[in-house]
Amino acid sequence: MRHLLDIKDLSRKEIETILERAMWYKSLKVYPKTLEGKFVLTAFFEPSTRTKVSFQKAAMNLGANVIDFAPESSSLLKGETDLDTILTLNMMDFDCLVVRIRRNGAPKEFSKYVKMPVVNAGDGTNEHPTQALLDAMTMVEHFNTLKLKVAIVGDIVHSRVARSLTELLNKFGAEVRMVGPKGFVPESFEGVSLITNDLEEAIHDVDVIYALRIQKERLEESYPNVDDFFRTMQINSKTIELAPKHAVLMHPGPFNRNVEVSDDVVYSERSKILEQVKNGVFVRMAVLEFAMGVIEVESVRSMEASLAGR
Amino acid sequence: MRHLLDIKDLSRKEIETILERAMWYKSLKVYPKTLEGKFVLTAFFEPSTRTKVSFQKAAMNLGANVIDFAPESSSLLKGETDLDTILTLNMMDFDCLVVRIRRNGAPKEFSKYVKMPVVNAGDGTNEHPTQALLDAMTMVEHFNTLKLKVAIVGDIVHSRVARSLTELLNKFGAEVRMVGPKGFVPESFEGVSLITNDLEEAIHDVDVIYALRIQKERLEESYPNVDDFFRTMQINSKTIELAPKHAVLMHPGPFNRNVEVSDDVVYSERSKILEQVKNGVFVRMAVLEFAMGVIEVESVRSMEASLAGR
Amino acid sequence: MRHLLDIKDLSRKEIETILERAMWYKSLKVYPKTLEGKFVLTAFFEPSTRTKVSFQKAAMNLGANVIDFAPESSSLLKGETDLDTILTLNMMDFDCLVVRIRRNGAPKEFSKYVKMPVVNAGDGTNEHPTQALLDAMTMVEHFNTLKLKVAIVGDIVHSRVARSLTELLNKFGAEVRMVGPKGFVPESFEGVSLITNDLEEAIHDVDVIYALRIQKERLEESYPNVDDFFRTMQINSKTIELAPKHAVLMHPGPFNRNVEVSDDVVYSERSKILEQVKNGVFVRMAVLEFAMGVIEVESVRSMEASLAGR
Repeated sequence: MRHLLDIKDLSRKEIETILERAMWYKSLKVYPKTLEGKFVLTAFFEPSTRTKVSFQKAAMNLGANVIDFAPESSSLLKGETDLDTILTLNMMDFDCLVVRIRRNGAPKEFSKYVKMPVVNAGDGTNEHPTQALLDAMTMVEHFNTLKLKVAIVGDIVHSRVARSLTELLNKFGAEVRMVGPKGFVPESFEGVSLITNDLEEAIHDVDVIYALRIQKERLEESYPNVDDFFRTMQINSKTIELAPKHAVLMHPGPFNRNVEVSDDVVYSERSKILEQVKNGVFVRMAVLEFAMGVIEVESVRSMEASLAGR
Repeated sequence: MRHLLDIKDLSRKEIETILERAMWYKSLKVYPKTLEGKFVLTAFFEPSTRTKVSFQKAAMNLGANVIDFAPESSSLLKGETDLDTILTLNMMDFDCLVVRIRRNGAPKEFSKYVKMPVVNAGDGTNEHPTQALLDAMTMVEHFNTLKLKVAIVGDIVHSRVARSLTELLNKFGAEVRMVGPKGFVPESFEGVSLITNDLEEAIHDVDVIYALRIQKERLEESYPNVDDFFRTMQINSKTIELAPKHAVLMHPGPFNRNVEVSDDVVYSERSKILEQVKNGVFVRMAVLEFAMGVIEVESVRSMEASLAGR
Repeated sequence: MRHLLDIKDLSRKEIETILERAMWYKSLKVYPKTLEGKFVLTAFFEPSTRTKVSFQKAAMNLGANVIDFAPESSSLLKGETDLDTILTLNMMDFDCLVVRIRRNGAPKEFSKYVKMPVVNAGDGTNEHPTQALLDAMTMVEHFNTLKLKVAIVGDIVHSRVARSLTELLNKFGAEVRMVGPKGFVPESFEGVSLITNDLEEAIHDVDVIYALRIQKERLEESYPNVDDFFRTMQINSKTIELAPKHAVLMHPGPFNRNVEVSDDVVYSERSKILEQVKNGVFVRMAVLEFAMGVIEVESVRSMEASLAGR
């Protein structure tokens, strides 16, 4: 049993174990029922139907039973804390808790009190580790290494994805840059080589353009000229030419068509967006096995060579 | 693999195949696990809990796994199109998509982009093919033919059920009539022999009275005298006498007690309403098998004789 | 097949059968798949996600399939009665209906019309029999008898839990008292030996303090001095000293931290609150088997001796 709370706590070895297992699953047509008889509880305090479906599919692919706890805002308003809710559910003998919640650090807090492994499916602006793992899998598949130049583009300040991905890429020697409109990028960020408002500066020599969701309302409030944004910061058939020909486009979804990405690139050949979704199921299969102790780090041969290869 | 999008696209032969399979299932106590290992995704953008339960039960009766994607209005408001949502879910490797949605034609659109069969569980005012199939099964069971006189009564203009049912009945030589208050019936409708506001004219010699839901609010707005409606258009113990003794009452549900149907007929001996619900599960079992290629049209002996028999 | 609608209708023997089975399940690591192939329908018209998860886990522990019908307020507003909804679902061939609903007596009404056993998961202010059963199990485990002095504390007037628990305890010779602020306790209550507004009077010699949820809003309206309430009626580290050292604290959950119970007692050694939740799953496993005829009263040896023992 092993919690999966954030990328920080995972060793390179553990990450490699998970990615290797996920890639193996992707190569199979029929999956072994390694989680048969297990019960997985999904508790999404902050709704996210796509990530929930991805986890449910992953668990059921391996034969697990899944029960979804759908918190009503009402019952939480009634005065019960989210920790008390989790402590209650903890008494019902589940083998794994997959939790999404708005409160930063809540999954870590829960993990101290419950007897089952906790998998963080996104907590506030803190971490979204399975997203970073599936992103890494997608990059490794394409480039056969993580020693890459990656530019994260968009609303970075509010993004747990940016944090988890940067942590992970740093562990494997990638160079991470951040670019976005003023007010959307942090002043400084550990492990990031460049923070800028200039898209070209950020992406002219990258391997990966990693676009993040921008909420139009927020953009209109903070940005003097929205049309200007679309010309200079949106990833579209023009701005994507600022990057090298070999660079790929990624996005954690859901995306705003014609806000941060335009119709003409979102499903183009350079886009890995749907591949990320596909890999998400395989990564979560491995993560659930990792959390429930089905796969062990020790038993897996090193991937370091290939990951750090190029 | 075969999409089931509307009645138009189904041949007589295909309809017979589905109905025969559904009737066979109705005769069994234990069902073969023909969908074991399959994953069915239900995505009801427009909520309908009864139809969803019917599909879920049908899938699970045959051993399939079911995952429900419950779209939050929020995430769709955030700017993601319904097609992008479906394209995302499509990457998670489901074997069948059952979709209900308000937008006319959306299931057909989805079917062009996804790699799994799409079953239309109702799209806007367009089609509701599994409802028409279960209605046909109920009629065939009772009359042993579809060469029937059927009067559809009520709010026909807004009804996808009316459209799908008329399409289906036309294929098998039934005579379809439409009757309802002014503003609730179309000016013309292909394949319909009579459109009227006079209930007696419509039902005096029918085999089936098929009542549709009427929303009281809408009725009060459009109809000069609501009491008059209840006397002349509501199906109740008096007005049902306008039809022949052998005529049966059907309704797709949910019904408004004492609006379009009265307490004293809704579960009477002449009502097939609950039988329709029961048949719905069997029809959907067959439809899911049909969509996933478990049953093939070619392998089924003709039912044409019996259906067109009488 | 046997409905489980309220405690009133259960004999001592039946209650003992259920508790003994639940305790046996608690001792096992792997459960027999006694409900394999069965379909359980959960229909929570009044939402309660914890009780629903408990029933779902119980059913799936024994191999049953579970489908959840989640009533939309919209469809019920459209004019369909809850009975018509249930009659519809009844046609889809489920083996058991677990229902929660605001309307008192509705589960009993449903049971007259459906062909499957009905388990009441709480109806309005009427009954919540599985809660009383799990409470009894928790008491028997700790005290090895139900001949106990039990004080129910808090908002009793609005509590279905108080009613079911009192019924059950009365059957086994327990002494039940009720204590709460004015307006929160009934004037009289069958089978209750003391009704008071004085906490000390109620609990000075009890075995069990059974606290009920109090809604703060309601408290502020009805109670002249809320601080006074917290000093005299809240169960906290001071007021719990009014009870004997051996007395335990119970609560059906969810609780309002620092309203009816304080932080320092809620998970203290004297608290059985989490044990109640744990026992809930085992009791519901037994209840589902009982309802579906898997366990029979006749086949179980008497527990009367031990329950009435002390």
